[in-house]
Amino acid sequence: MSERINNLFAELKKKQADSCFISSKANVYYLSGYYTDPHERVIGIILMDEIDPIFLLPKMEEEDARNAGWEHLIVSYYDHENPWQVLQAFLKKQEKNPAVMAVEKDHLTVHRYNLLQEILPDTTYIDATDAIQNLRLIKSKKEHEYLRTAADLADLGVKTGVEALKEGVSELEVVATIEHSLKKQGIREMSFQTMALFGAKTASPHGNPDKTQLEKNSFVLFDLGVIYQGYCSDITRTVAFGDITDEQKQIYNTVLTANEKAIEASRAGTAVGELDKIARNYITEQGYGEYFTHRLGHGLGIETHEYPSMHSENTLAIQPGMCFTIEPGIYVPDVGGVRIEDMLFTTNYMPLELTKYPKTLQVIS
Amino acid sequence: MSERINNLFAELKKKQADSCFISSKANVYYLSGYYTDPHERVIGIILMDEIDPIFLLPKMEEEDARNAGWEHLIVSYYDHENPWQVLQAFLKKQEKNPAVMAVEKDHLTVHRYNLLQEILPDTTYIDATDAIQNLRLIKSKKEHEYLRTAADLADLGVKTGVEALKEGVSELEVVATIEHSLKKQGIREMSFQTMALFGAKTASPHGNPDKTQLEKNSFVLFDLGVIYQGYCSDITRTVAFGDITDEQKQIYNTVLTANEKAIEASRAGTAVGELDKIARNYITEQGYGEYFTHRLGHGLGIETHEYPSMHSENTLAIQPGMCFTIEPGIYVPDVGGVRIEDMLFTTNYMPLELTKYPKTLQVIS
Repeated sequence: MSERINNLFAELKKKQADSCFISSKANVYYLSGYYTDPHERVIGIILMDEIDPIFLLPKMEEEDARNAGWEHLIVSYYDHENPWQVLQAFLKKQEKNPAVMAVEKDHLTVHRYNLLQEILPDTTYIDATDAIQNLRLIKSKKEHEYLRTAADLADLGVKTGVEALKEGVSELEVVATIEHSLKKQGIREMSFQTMALFGAKTASPHGNPDKTQLEKNSFVLFDLGVIYQGYCSDITRTVAFGDITDEQKQIYNTVLTANEKAIEASRAGTAVGELDKIARNYITEQGYGEYFTHRLGHGLGIETHEYPSMHSENTLAIQPGMCFTIEPGIYVPDVGGVRIEDMLFTTNYMPLELTKYPKTLQVIS
Repeated sequence: MSERINNLFAELKKKQADSCFISSKANVYYLSGYYTDPHERVIGIILMDEIDPIFLLPKMEEEDARNAGWEHLIVSYYDHENPWQVLQAFLKKQEKNPAVMAVEKDHLTVHRYNLLQEILPDTTYIDATDAIQNLRLIKSKKEHEYLRTAADLADLGVKTGVEALKEGVSELEVVATIEHSLKKQGIREMSFQTMALFGAKTASPHGNPDKTQLEKNSFVLFDLGVIYQGYCSDITRTVAFGDITDEQKQIYNTVLTANEKAIEASRAGTAVGELDKIARNYITEQGYGEYFTHRLGHGLGIETHEYPSMHSENTLAIQPGMCFTIEPGIYVPDVGGVRIEDMLFTTNYMPLELTKYPKTLQVIS
């Protein structure tokens, strides 16, 4: 982790920062190796010149952070204490008064920003978002391994879900079966709420599973992922349970081709917005443009959705070592929806497809 | 929901606001009845004089929000569009230029606050946090019903977990069994990551379940909750699997008495900080003060942790209709930890204990 801390601080110094305060749980994990959900409590890593990195933490998490490998300073507070005052007192003792502090303006709330300004009123604040996003954008070999394993487990989740399909089973029963099987494999947390949608409900890109029962001759859409060693996976597959109509088949194959075209184009140097356009143009040519209502995909890593956003206007060029999803979808009210989502890991050559569950239309009978 | 919108706007007007922008998913759900996790996308409810409430939403969620009952205006945007510009264009067309806008300063990021200031540069911004916290603090009869059912399902989760205990079972297997059983009951989401900790691991208040196997003669700690109709439950129980030592029994009974004393004191008019002190003083008298490393509890409702924080310095007086947890704990390294947590709902008389799973030491053999 010390390398990440050094890299970040070096980037921030180029922007004239002599200090930073990093408080989002994802970035705290990235820098410290300690994965915690602080809920409403404050956590933060503070970097300053000529002093060991500081971890601001609730007292009760001190031991856990040490066990996770944090070897630097810890400043901890009890629930009845004001963490900002505790931090202020510590910095005063160290005679530290940062001139320019980088903070995560895309994460820090206005309220906490004001509190920070109160304890360090003479400091100028700049944004650390870009610097840390750019570091996290390019994954290490270790991170690739974690993402690969997370993707394997997502494949297994879809396989388990498909095997659980039978007439009359409910969406939530299928979700329960998938998660039960993954947790028995040692998975602590899904990367988001597991989705299993039946029939007409597939037409909502953000639908919620409920007690809806599976009927013959309908689409089933799975969207799920796991967190493995702090890294997220994300896969979507749509299958046919029984016979589907020709129109439904056409929708399926349109989405599949759009998915494949975008994957084929995912090479270093191409703008991510191009990928969205390639998929969208194809879907539009086939007459379904108005039913592809979301972007092509999103970056993923420590967060399920992270930088970059794979939308049509994004000019960021693909570099080796990026991980993102390709997930075109067509959602036609009353007819049904299809989304096919893969996790890609970019290389100097073709991208690696981390999710491997079959994509040709599967008809479950 | 319209009544909640009206109540909030009336409160904000007392602070001279003529408009507000509410964007946290919990408050958006509270005001709209539409429960969504927007991830990094922007959602918001905008209230202004002389115009129907506006829901700013991603295009693909428009249909879902309507189905959830939103009858007012919707301003929606595609992923490749800038939501702030879409909102700005809409407001311009309506010739709306708010003078004083209330925003959630405890939720809104510095980045989004700056974007809002860019599209409405002549507006003064005040904080909406207190007003909406105070509204959410006192629950309606309907909310009480939801919380009660959520608590019943949490009780069931503990029961399922206790029944799953056997030598050699892993923490994650027990977690999987609990969640599987609750999801089959129709529960879509747990209110937080289910915790089942064995033996020495109970000594960490924020420990994570893993493949640790259950051994005879150890503590087992469950901490879990479900989301029912958008409302969260939260219960902790500690049981003995086989024989435990006299010291462990003494710790258990100390925590239990502290829990009971704080519940007994949870009457209208008492400051919430008093409850923490009552539990803490008792634990300190018994010689375990230094091992009770967190506050007594937290409010809950749409969020698992919400206003108020039940720490010793909080002078807020209890009122009927509040829902909060009472969860003293003692965590002794190498000996083990005990936490006993209940969800209370305050009345004009004694508080209702929503969680009902037995609290006297259960020895599972």
